[in-house]
Amino acid sequence: MEGRIQHLAAIIDPALPPYTRRAFTEPFLRGRRWLQAEFEAAGLSTVTDAGGNLMGKLAGSEPGALPIAMGSHSDTVVGGGRYDGIAGVVAALEVAQSLAEDGMRPRHPLWVVDFLAEEASDYGPSCVGSRAIAGTLSPAMLEAANAQGESLAEALRRMGGDPDRAAAGPIHGREPFAAFVEMHIEQGPVLESEGLPIGVVTGVVGIRRLALRVQGQADHAGTTPMHMRRDALVGAAELIKLVHQRAREAHTHTGLVATVGQMTHSPNQSNVVPESALLTIDARCASMQGVTDFTDAIVREGGSLLAGHGLALEHTLVLDAEPCSFAPPVRQAIGNAARKRGHAFREMQSGAGHDAMHIAQVCPTGMLFVPSRGGRSHASQEHTTTQQLCVGAEVLLEAVLELDATLPLR
Amino acid sequence: MEGRIQHLAAIIDPALPPYTRRAFTEPFLRGRRWLQAEFEAAGLSTVTDAGGNLMGKLAGSEPGALPIAMGSHSDTVVGGGRYDGIAGVVAALEVAQSLAEDGMRPRHPLWVVDFLAEEASDYGPSCVGSRAIAGTLSPAMLEAANAQGESLAEALRRMGGDPDRAAAGPIHGREPFAAFVEMHIEQGPVLESEGLPIGVVTGVVGIRRLALRVQGQADHAGTTPMHMRRDALVGAAELIKLVHQRAREAHTHTGLVATVGQMTHSPNQSNVVPESALLTIDARCASMQGVTDFTDAIVREGGSLLAGHGLALEHTLVLDAEPCSFAPPVRQAIGNAARKRGHAFREMQSGAGHDAMHIAQVCPTGMLFVPSRGGRSHASQEHTTTQQLCVGAEVLLEAVLELDATLPLR
Repeated sequence: MEGRIQHLAAIIDPALPPYTRRAFTEPFLRGRRWLQAEFEAAGLSTVTDAGGNLMGKLAGSEPGALPIAMGSHSDTVVGGGRYDGIAGVVAALEVAQSLAEDGMRPRHPLWVVDFLAEEASDYGPSCVGSRAIAGTLSPAMLEAANAQGESLAEALRRMGGDPDRAAAGPIHGREPFAAFVEMHIEQGPVLESEGLPIGVVTGVVGIRRLALRVQGQADHAGTTPMHMRRDALVGAAELIKLVHQRAREAHTHTGLVATVGQMTHSPNQSNVVPESALLTIDARCASMQGVTDFTDAIVREGGSLLAGHGLALEHTLVLDAEPCSFAPPVRQAIGNAARKRGHAFREMQSGAGHDAMHIAQVCPTGMLFVPSRGGRSHASQEHTTTQQLCVGAEVLLEAVLELDATLPLR
Repeated sequence: MEGRIQHLAAIIDPALPPYTRRAFTEPFLRGRRWLQAEFEAAGLSTVTDAGGNLMGKLAGSEPGALPIAMGSHSDTVVGGGRYDGIAGVVAALEVAQSLAEDGMRPRHPLWVVDFLAEEASDYGPSCVGSRAIAGTLSPAMLEAANAQGESLAEALRRMGGDPDRAAAGPIHGREPFAAFVEMHIEQGPVLESEGLPIGVVTGVVGIRRLALRVQGQADHAGTTPMHMRRDALVGAAELIKLVHQRAREAHTHTGLVATVGQMTHSPNQSNVVPESALLTIDARCASMQGVTDFTDAIVREGGSLLAGHGLALEHTLVLDAEPCSFAPPVRQAIGNAARKRGHAFREMQSGAGHDAMHIAQVCPTGMLFVPSRGGRSHASQEHTTTQQLCVGAEVLLEAVLELDATLPLR
């Protein structure tokens, strides 16, 4: 497990901070070629599908049964870590390999998937491969080009995919898999802080992003009395505190989180009272109503706070992403697997997007989390111990075996 | 008055936003040549001194009497207005001209000064000409170069100055003038909001600038529970609100103003909890103790607020500029002049720096303010009406006549 992860961690772009392996690049293709050889050495037959997903297939015993799929992604963000995505691909490979080596033949075919371009790329959308399987990779997304003028369609073709088929609907049909299970690092601090090895993921949060604009007036910082100012940065500070305070209150009841991560203000000079500020609120919650109520309250309450400072507030919707709920049979299979192997677990939602939320649109889907040291992710410090990875792989194996035994063969 | 101001407003750099006439540039030199011709047509003899200051001189009746000087500066900031500095130069010229035309001969010589480069230039320091008169234009300042590699010394020579003499001490000796009076636009909203035509300036505030660094931790905005965050932007918001609140409280008693005008934070991404923030506090007050006590309290109180968020606070002193108090005899002369002409006035401090604060180091100095529409300055919207300018010039004339009558001839 650890050996394969460290092998992939050496196949990176030397011109970028470690451990960078961006989708569509030469290091990514080298990683893919190595993975494909590993899949084949483990006894899997390999294919790259129309969505550019690398698949390793173990045959099942029952003719006509839909495959059970496992996997994640091998691409990283710039400066991203060694475990995000990769841990899930390697764990899926080791599960299939152990079954193959033990001569166990599942009823359903078992597919190991390395989804293409889970991280947002220079071409725009994230989760390119899993969107193609869900049938939501639109022609507009495929036409978008990177800075060098290459379209996503052309880049997908370089990866061995087929953009025409990918644009035409779900590339493996309306019901591609009997079930899909993704193991992933948590990318947050909850499991570590509670001393738990496994998280059974209930779903992925809905996200609403609002852009807020605070309009004040630029004035001389020396000559303008305090009570005659309309300081846009003071207004922005009110909003940042309000978002943090209200999110802390809501978090206890609903698990909502909200962040002001992006902000600019003008003219940004030490001797000028700030004229305007532009900030983005990112609010996430298991229920879309939860994020909508939250951002509505911020705009209402913030607007009245800012009026008290002589400031105007405008807001624009930047992003609305619906939440997804994972399938109860898959969640139960993961929980049962942890119990069977004697590993404590908790149910939790995912605050980050994953390939699984796209696959959940076309088949019963679930995820399990393993701990992230210090909750760090998308950074070179990202770490999960070998033991934690092995516990995750054990649970993945047991969950797949239970699904193989209990799911209808169709 | 207005005609001369509008004439200068047409001598600008067409490549920059109106009304830009940066010191050391070709448009500045054209403005200077036109001013020199106006000085001479008004009956003044002209000279450019070693500090690059253009002077127009009216002889006095008493041999050996020190001159009384009036004036301001004709350079602007980029996008600066038509009145900042220029109003004071033109008013001084009109005062001298009216005396010359009426055949009135003051006891003291009367000098009209257009100081060189009051605004901070590409070479570094502001108030180049008035510093040369005060003897505080250091060799290090003269050696500093602009982006094109020209030193301030070379630029000063292009303006007709003598950098060697300017570096050697006060260019007109330890007591250059019997007194100096500068008329200037307020650059703030106080006179307009109180319906007053004249401000008698008591002094220029002291300034302390602190750079504050808030250190938190970057985390995923979706996966990190609210209570486990160390959000540097939330800490920065606490500081911005604290500075504003404490400055509002202090302002009533001491006139202190404080501003967070400059701030950056990292990594500035909508989906990442901010790791660090860097902000500048600019605090100004008539007493240096006032600004020191204020910034000490912000660092103390802010540090404890931030510790509650798990954040560290570091601070660095960026600038300490001592306040200056104008000479009581000059302040009285300006107040008496306003009374004599029937114009209401108030005493007020200047929150911005001026040539007068440098000249105050070597002779009795005072300033009067005329209103700025909407308090706007350093912008094309900068405006003072012809009537307001004429009231200012009247008061300047009367103040100079009183000083001429009452100051010892030495």
